[in-house]
Amino acid sequence: MRTIQVIGIGTGNPEHLTIQGIRALNATDVVFALDKGEAKAGLNAVRRTICQLYAERPGCRFVEAPDPERDRRPTDYSAAVDDWHAARAALYEDMIATHLGEDQTGAFLVWGDPALYDSTLRILERVSARGRVAFTVSVVPGITSVQALAASHRIPLHRIGEPVQITTGRRLRDEGGAVTGATVVMLDGDPTFDGLDPDLVIYWGAYLGTPDELLSTGRIGDVAESIHVMRAEARERHGWIMDIYLLMPRGRQSRRA
Amino acid sequence: MRTIQVIGIGTGNPEHLTIQGIRALNATDVVFALDKGEAKAGLNAVRRTICQLYAERPGCRFVEAPDPERDRRPTDYSAAVDDWHAARAALYEDMIATHLGEDQTGAFLVWGDPALYDSTLRILERVSARGRVAFTVSVVPGITSVQALAASHRIPLHRIGEPVQITTGRRLRDEGGAVTGATVVMLDGDPTFDGLDPDLVIYWGAYLGTPDELLSTGRIGDVAESIHVMRAEARERHGWIMDIYLLMPRGRQSRRA
Ligand SMILES: C[S@@+](CC[C@H](N)C(=O)[O-])C[C@H]1O[C@@H](n2cnc3c(N)ncnc32)[C@H](O)[C@@H]1O
Ligand SMILES: C[S@@+](CC[C@H](N)C(=O)[O-])C[C@H]1O[C@@H](n2cnc3c(N)ncnc32)[C@H](O)[C@@H]1O
Repeated sequence: MRTIQVIGIGTGNPEHLTIQGIRALNATDVVFALDKGEAKAGLNAVRRTICQLYAERPGCRFVEAPDPERDRRPTDYSAAVDDWHAARAALYEDMIATHLGEDQTGAFLVWGDPALYDSTLRILERVSARGRVAFTVSVVPGITSVQALAASHRIPLHRIGEPVQITTGRRLRDEGGAVTGATVVMLDGDPTFDGLDPDLVIYWGAYLGTPDELLSTGRIGDVAESIHVMRAEARERHGWIMDIYLLMPRGRQSRRA
Repeated sequence: MRTIQVIGIGTGNPEHLTIQGIRALNATDVVFALDKGEAKAGLNAVRRTICQLYAERPGCRFVEAPDPERDRRPTDYSAAVDDWHAARAALYEDMIATHLGEDQTGAFLVWGDPALYDSTLRILERVSARGRVAFTVSVVPGITSVQALAASHRIPLHRIGEPVQITTGRRLRDEGGAVTGATVVMLDGDPTFDGLDPDLVIYWGAYLGTPDELLSTGRIGDVAESIHVMRAEARERHGWIMDIYLLMPRGRQSRRA
């Protein structure tokens, strides 16, 4: 039976890779990757760097296929995601059937951790359901951008004993920007800090773990504008941006509450 | 100036350690640890294993001090945490002042990731504020028990594009057990799944990443009882238990919602 390893590789720093990840990589015959176009070529460059740095096995092949087109401004978001997952499932099935022998082990190197806003596990489930190729799946956890953000700011994600919510920019806007507790916002292509309470404290980070890392923190009312400017400049320079932020309701950690 | 590295070591599997963590360990003169008593001796054993496996530098010392007493059933929870943090701050200050030279580098090996339900960063901030020893802090992210849980169950933490909340057993009970979206519950010494909607799906894991790992999943109404039994037996056998669970409102991921 084929094995597919879904390996979290961290968020840009090749040294985010775990020993477990390296061991999994070295048990891999074929690494599968999607080519997401020029703008995101840097992401696959990290994957190749990781293979070069840590794969001791000379035979390990890198198979790259073009990512299916995706409707980025769909009227029906769920339907668009669904179509795109279906297209990817057909592609993964093809890559596995064509490039992986019956008793071989393949790997997908997932940005960050496979459990957080990543479609690889869902798509592999679809491939399984299609019934053409059979395989077992194993998952290797990886450092998420959430942890990279907290580490670079040297902060906990929440106040003592309190919860933390992880959400998306889309959701935050859909819910009117109400932030009652510690909230990490990901996948915000176009952050409009405008709708937010100016007294929230933001911890923002872009290109975390890479040499281009940017950080900013302060009261939303004070730093939103300068983050907008940094973002726009960086996006211009790199052609793409990956950023994430933690919003924290204000008020020092009261000693008695 | 002294440097203190706060290094996330993952949650029981020494192979959770990242290359960045290993590099930090090898730049460390003294590893500080707290002795939390016999029941938790296994936790420091993992720390020592990590040092043995990955520290290439022969000089690296392991300094262990007894953890201050903590009131486990306080009437005023915040005051108790505050007192305990103050006691730990005094202890850390002492360990640093006594065992770390002016230009040396110390490390705390933190279970999981330093940003999630861990007091090391808060306590070091207190030590700084006391003003007796000066140091800079750096943080190395680590695999959390949240990611270890998801990896072992081979699942994403949330439905497509939806948020995930990370909270504590105490909080969940304080809020009456209402679960509206994907919710990870940690630090639940005494889970009472009784108050929960029996139709929630639970993904439970204990001793994740260790050879003693236990997993269970299903409808709360169907599996709560068997998880109670597994928990009680395991706690009896090991003298302690570390477990975590994800609650997921039921209903398959609708293709259009
Ligand atoms: C499709 S999600 C993938 C998340 C990934 N699985 C993880 O565990 O972090 C992409 C989002 O993650 C965040 N992200 C990923 N890498 C990042 C980095 N190096 N710096 C800042 N944000 C990052 C951004 O919010 C981005 O929109
Ligand atoms: C004080 S918190 C520390 C969390 C840690 N910093 C992390 O990143 O996972 C301890 C809680 O983490 C969870 N936990 C930590 N290690 C675990 C493991 N190996 N298996 C299951 N749960 C674990 C349990 O919920 C436990 O009550």
